[in-house]
Formats: sequence, structure tokens, C-alpha cells
Amino acid sequence: MLNYNYLFEIIKDKDRIKLGKEIDEKYLSDAIKRNKGEAEVLVFPINNEEVSLIMKFSYENNIIVTPRGAGTGLVGATIPTNGGIVLDLSLMNKILELDKENLTITVEPGILLKDLQEYVEKIELFYPPDPGEKGASIGGNISTNAGGMRAVKYGVTRNYVMALELVLANGSIMNVGEKVIKDSSGLDLKDLIIGSEGTLAIITKATLKLIPKPKKSVSILIPFNSLDKAIDSVIKIINKNSKPTAIEFIEKDVIENAENYLQLKFPDDKGEAYLLLTFDGDEDSEVISNYNKAKEVCLNNGAIDFIILNKIEDIDRTWKIRGALVTAVEAVSEQEPIDIVVPINKTAEFINYTKEVQAKYGIKITSFGHAGDGNVHLCVIKGSMGEEEWNKKSVLLLGNLYEKSKELGGLPSGEHGIGLNKRPYFLKVTDKVNVDYMKKIKSVFDDKNILNSNKAY
Amino acid sequence: MLNYNYLFEIIKDKDRIKLGKEIDEKYLSDAIKRNKGEAEVLVFPINNEEVSLIMKFSYENNIIVTPRGAGTGLVGATIPTNGGIVLDLSLMNKILELDKENLTITVEPGILLKDLQEYVEKIELFYPPDPGEKGASIGGNISTNAGGMRAVKYGVTRNYVMALELVLANGSIMNVGEKVIKDSSGLDLKDLIIGSEGTLAIITKATLKLIPKPKKSVSILIPFNSLDKAIDSVIKIINKNSKPTAIEFIEKDVIENAENYLQLKFPDDKGEAYLLLTFDGDEDSEVISNYNKAKEVCLNNGAIDFIILNKIEDIDRTWKIRGALVTAVEAVSEQEPIDIVVPINKTAEFINYTKEVQAKYGIKITSFGHAGDGNVHLCVIKGSMGEEEWNKKSVLLLGNLYEKSKELGGLPSGEHGIGLNKRPYFLKVTDKVNVDYMKKIKSVFDDKNILNSNKAY
Repeated sequence: MLNYNYLFEIIKDKDRIKLGKEIDEKYLSDAIKRNKGEAEVLVFPINNEEVSLIMKFSYENNIIVTPRGAGTGLVGATIPTNGGIVLDLSLMNKILELDKENLTITVEPGILLKDLQEYVEKIELFYPPDPGEKGASIGGNISTNAGGMRAVKYGVTRNYVMALELVLANGSIMNVGEKVIKDSSGLDLKDLIIGSEGTLAIITKATLKLIPKPKKSVSILIPFNSLDKAIDSVIKIINKNSKPTAIEFIEKDVIENAENYLQLKFPDDKGEAYLLLTFDGDEDSEVISNYNKAKEVCLNNGAIDFIILNKIEDIDRTWKIRGALVTAVEAVSEQEPIDIVVPINKTAEFINYTKEVQAKYGIKITSFGHAGDGNVHLCVIKGSMGEEEWNKKSVLLLGNLYEKSKELGGLPSGEHGIGLNKRPYFLKVTDKVNVDYMKKIKSVFDDKNILNSNKAY
Repeated sequence: MLNYNYLFEIIKDKDRIKLGKEIDEKYLSDAIKRNKGEAEVLVFPINNEEVSLIMKFSYENNIIVTPRGAGTGLVGATIPTNGGIVLDLSLMNKILELDKENLTITVEPGILLKDLQEYVEKIELFYPPDPGEKGASIGGNISTNAGGMRAVKYGVTRNYVMALELVLANGSIMNVGEKVIKDSSGLDLKDLIIGSEGTLAIITKATLKLIPKPKKSVSILIPFNSLDKAIDSVIKIINKNSKPTAIEFIEKDVIENAENYLQLKFPDDKGEAYLLLTFDGDEDSEVISNYNKAKEVCLNNGAIDFIILNKIEDIDRTWKIRGALVTAVEAVSEQEPIDIVVPINKTAEFINYTKEVQAKYGIKITSFGHAGDGNVHLCVIKGSMGEEEWNKKSVLLLGNLYEKSKELGGLPSGEHGIGLNKRPYFLKVTDKVNVDYMKKIKSVFDDKNILNSNKAY
């Protein structure tokens, strides 16, 4: 075994290095906790200099490094599969600069999404990306190009990253991007890093774009007799230019499961399926004019009702239940979370296909998610199925789902990333030439293949 | 000299191949016409198959290929500097699909921006990127990540490219992206191609995002006593969340020059400097509420007036003059067009610096451009200066400008690209590690260095 003593020279504070059995299990896994890796060392650097020295050491000694943020990932990207060093960036969580003139904030990667959102909203600014997991780190959000509910109106994390400071595999430091909106100055290295799941470089600083905080926000619940009708309305809502912030869909049985789990009642029970819309803006007139366009569309398209949630407790209950859908599933069974993305007009076809494979394999699938951007979240639920049967059937079922998404012009992941868990499926449905070029680009950044190796692509 | 006869087997139509002296000069240069290259062959392919066969042939025979669209570039990216083949994609200009449900349009790269805009606006849809040069091709727009005036509200070309079909240097075909908003599926090859100025691959198809066409649009002219006051108002307009579509600035002398050139009168003459704003939306109330926020800000910040342009002829005259600023300069003198981009709050400082170097070198610089995104357009004007003095001094002056932009946290190009003309400056102000990685990535895509080689980075 390699001598890691040199790390104690870099990291003066001994508490920030854990060796072998001192390493808590949670640092060897992710939020799913199913798979567990192995590592010789866990390090908590506090600045880019330490990260750089750790990478230099690792590069010289061919040590695999697995970076991690808050550990909320769902695809195994933070699981150390080849030993070596786990590089935990959670202590690098400072806000470095708020630039009120250019509307940017510069942060360390370990800051949590919820802390960033709270900080900027207190001063009437707004960081639009809003992934469901508020306890994720910004570095993690950037590494998976996290999306979230507000993507319909505001776009995804990629659209808000203006600049990054990176530590490269060999320990050198690179800065990409500036506080500018337009850039036609050489190859776009910044966007290559965003969504690369820690396979190309370590993010040590990020400058993010902010916008003024919208003064008004309205949540609306729309029950339908069938999911088809609900999904069919989504395209019409968007094409009517009603500018919704979010368009979520939920089926009745998924709601009931979450109601039981939270012991909370959903504000309505008339629908077999629901759309949950939000609208925001600065003026009541703007918000009302926008949601009225959606109202007309929905009522003409078979909506049973169009419920504007006025009471704070109704809004709270609704979003608490929406937020707990996955946890409620997990409370009763092991599950495989999927975040396939398809063109918006293929959403219904894809969801109907999930019902087909559900019947074919006898495995329950619940679906919900971001109807406004075709990002369908599925929980493929093990339930009481035996381990062996589950292992065999779930792989076949997942293979079918990924094949279908490709056929519909979709992609394996909208926001969670590929990591370890989806890698076999990703490699199967992605053109070989694309995977080849991804691997070659990795070699440019990481010629010794030490950075989160054998993940994603 | 190599035998190009094989090309006549690929391209059956002889009219689409020009050899040696048959090649019209315009295909050896760009819109600036200052530099001229040399090429053995000019080819006009009409489909991806032909492009693929041409690239296979070029790859096997180590022939340099210089791709071009409509030839409206300003930085020499389309000048063949190493002989070989000029690949003109202007005949590949068809609209392949309009997808009204997902709001996308799929086109060949040679289609002109104005033709695309006209086509979609006729059916009440909207392609938001709006670079000044409407005769540019979409392939060219993608290759420089063109920005334009509406970037303040809508973003740049990058934000509207959903998928690309590419022919690689070795002739193989690659597809990147899908009709989806969210993507966390492996490395982001698509964004690497956008803005790569034809150095990585040939774009043979593009799927672009559309939005519903805003029903209302208002142009507003705001005279100020000084440019400083005008620019200072810009940040306040944005931070007030008034959602302008475009914020342009123009100085009086630049307007006068264009007035003389066009023999047209600008609607106002009270200001030393002007902001020209547009607002759009679906409802009058929304547009009015937004521009009233800007009105309050401007009048509190020293604006002489706030002129809402109601007459169609006033709007026409204003935008005609705005559109002719560069042409008017070029009518009287050779000039070097610059499109440096700086953080918005550094715009005034940068423009003031241009006045300093103007005095220092005795070279006239006019400035105008996109105040809302820090993208400053400068014309560095030769005037009556002798050739030798101009060659010496203009290089020093440009060097100063690029150094200053770096110091202010800016970048060499916001939307025109680097090409040939800005390359020495780009290489000087860009960190060596970034340039190294760009070159290494180029080697992944183009190991024989045949695609638009020695351009940009």
C-alpha cells in the first residue's frame, strides 16, 4: 500500500484526513446507499491550494480520486470503485463575492443549494435552478447539470454558470468563463466541465448568474380524468405562451402513497392525474394574464377544475407531498430512480410504455415529474420481489425503457447524471462514435485516468 | 499537385466544383475583404453524404479544408490560409422540419438568418437570436455562437441549438443533442462544437429551439448628456427587472456619420449619447409596466427625454441608422471591427479607456453596441494614416485594448469569433493552459489538423 503520509504535510489539520477504517461508510456511497465502494483515504480540503497539492500527489502516484459534494447523488457517481482518495469538498462552502451590479455570486463548490437560495432571496435576488434536492452542493449541481422544476421558464444549471475555477488532474489550475453573457473566444471549455460528473476536473470555485427575485408566485392544481389528458394539455399550455415557471405531473396513486407517508391530505381528490403549475412575475396582472391562458387551455382540454392555491397551508401541503414522492416510495421498498428525458410531445407515449413494461415484468413503476420539459421521473419498485428475480428482471425492464427513450428521440438522463448505475444502459443507447470522443476528451484532461474513472461514459 | 479528379466522382454536378483560377475571389476571403487566401478547389456540396465523402478524401490525402457559409464573417475564419479545399455550404439551405409541438425547427446550415426568421415569424413563431448581419448563415451563427441585440432578454445562439449533425474530419457522422431541454447524459459535445469556428467538425444539420412570437414590441430612444450617464443607467435598468429585450448605446458622432451616409435623419438630436431600448411581450400592460420601470430609472439618472417611438417611420429610421453604423464608417475608411466583451459594470470604464488610446495613438475609435450585455463594438478607423504607420500603431493599440479587457474581466470576442485576425491577441491574453487544452481537444477531433487549421486558438 502507498504511503499517504505526504498528505499530512499538505493538510495540516489532522482531523481533515481519515485513513482506511476511520472512514465513515457514508463517504463510500451516495444517497441510494445500495452500492458501497472502498477507499484508502478520505480528505476534506479547505482551499484550491490543498486540492491542487492533493491532485499533484495523486497524479504522480497514479492514485484514483473520487470527488464528492454533499453526497446526495442518485447514480453512484460518488462511489469510489477503485480505492484511492475520496476528495470531499463539503468544507469549501463559503460565499466569496456577491456582485450586485453584474448580478453574480461567486461561491465555493461545497455550498448547499438551500443555503445559496436563502442567502440571495433575503436580498431580493434569485438563483433560478431549483432541483428537488435542496441539500445538494452547488459543485454537485454543476457536475450533473442539475435541472429541477423551474427549468420550463428559467433553464437549467448550465444556463447560470458564468465561470469556474478548476483543479486539473495533474494539479494545475484553470479558469474558464468570465462574468459575461456573450462569449465567442475559443473552444467552450466551461460547458464541457458542466455535467461531466467529476470525470474531467475538480471544481473549486463557481461564479453564478442571478436575477432579480420575482415578487409574485402562484401555485395552481389542475385535476384531470386521465394522465393522457393532463399531458396533452402541457404542450398547449406552453405553445399558448403562458410562460409557466414549472409544470409538474402526478398520478393519483403516487399522491396517495405520499399522503399516507406524510400523514397529510392533498388539497383535492377529484383527479386521476394532476398538473401542478406555478407562475411567477413582478406584477399581479402579468401572473394572472399568464395563468388565464393556461386556464382556458386546460378547461377546453378536459380539466375537471383549475384550483388556484390561495391558502399558504394548501400550497405547503401540495409542495410537501410533491417533494416527498420518492421518499414515500423508498419508505416501503427498494427502488431504482430514473430520470429519462424525451421530447415534450413524447411524454405521454413514454409514460404509457412504462405501463406496458410494468405489466410485462410484473414490476411496479410510478411516474411523476417535470411534464413541462419532458423529464420523466420513474421509480421502478422492487416491492416483495425476490432478490434474484429482481436483479434479472429489473435489468431487462430498464434496458427496455432506455431503448424506448432513444426511439422517441430522448436521452438517458435529464438531470441526475449517468454515474455508475446507468452506465451500462448509457453505453448501449449512445452512438459509439460519441462515447469514443468522450473518452478521448477525458484522456486530454486526465491522461492517467485517475479522476472518477470508469464513471458515466 | 494532388489529383482532385476523385471529387468529380463524388459531386456529379460539375458546376459545383471550381478549380484553381475558376474560383471567384470572394470565396478566398470574408466580409472584411482585407486578407485573401489561396485554394486549389471550391466545392458546393448539397448533402451530408457528399460532405462526408469530401472529408474522407481530404483526410486520406491530408488536404486542408476551410468551411464557409454566407461569407459574412469579420475575423478571417473563412480565409483558406493553407490551400486545399474551400467547402461552401450555402447550397445546403433547406428547412427540413418544423415541429410545432416541441417548438423546434430543423435546418441545413446554409440557410440564412433572415430567411429563417421570416419563415418562423410568418407562422407566429420566433427565433430569438438576432445578430446584426441578417445575411449570415445559421451554420456560421452557430460556429461563432453569434449573439446580437436581443441577447439581453433571450440569450445567444448557444441557448437555441438543441441538436447538431456533424461530419467529422475523417468523414464519419456524429449526432449531438436531442429535442430536449435537460441533458445530463455524458460529456457536452454539442456546446463544444458551438463557437468552434469550423475547427472541430462540419455542421450539416441543426435543430433549433423556437418560442411563440411576442405580440407586442416597443422601441424607445433615450438621450443623455454624456455616455457615462447613459451606461450608468444600463445596470439600473437591468437590476430593476424591467426585462428589456435589447439595450443598445450610440454616441452622437457615430449617429451623424450614419445620417450622412444614409441621408436619413435620426428622430432626435438632443443627446450626446443615446440608449436605444426595446421591450416585447404579449400584452400591452406587460410591456408598458416594464418600460415604465426603465423610464423611472433613466429620468432619475439624468436622461434628457424618454421617447417612445410610435410612428413606424421613426422606428424604421432609428433601426436603419443603428444597422448602418459600421457600413457608414467603412464607406469612408478602412477599419478594424472589434467586439470585446466585458462585465456590464465595466462597460463605461472600457469605453473611456478607448478614448485614452485614441489620443495616445492618434487613431480614431468609434464605439457603439450592446450595452445590455457588455459587448462593445468598436471601429478602429485608419482614416488618412499611412499604411506603414497604421500597421505599426494599430497593432499596438489593439494590444492595449485586449489587455485592458482582460484586466477588466472580459474576453476578446463576444460574438464575432477569433478567426485569423484576432488570433495573436487572443493567444496573448488567454491563459496558456486553456489554449493548450483547446489544441489538445482539436487533436481529438482533427488529428491531422486539416479542418480550418491555424484558426482561433
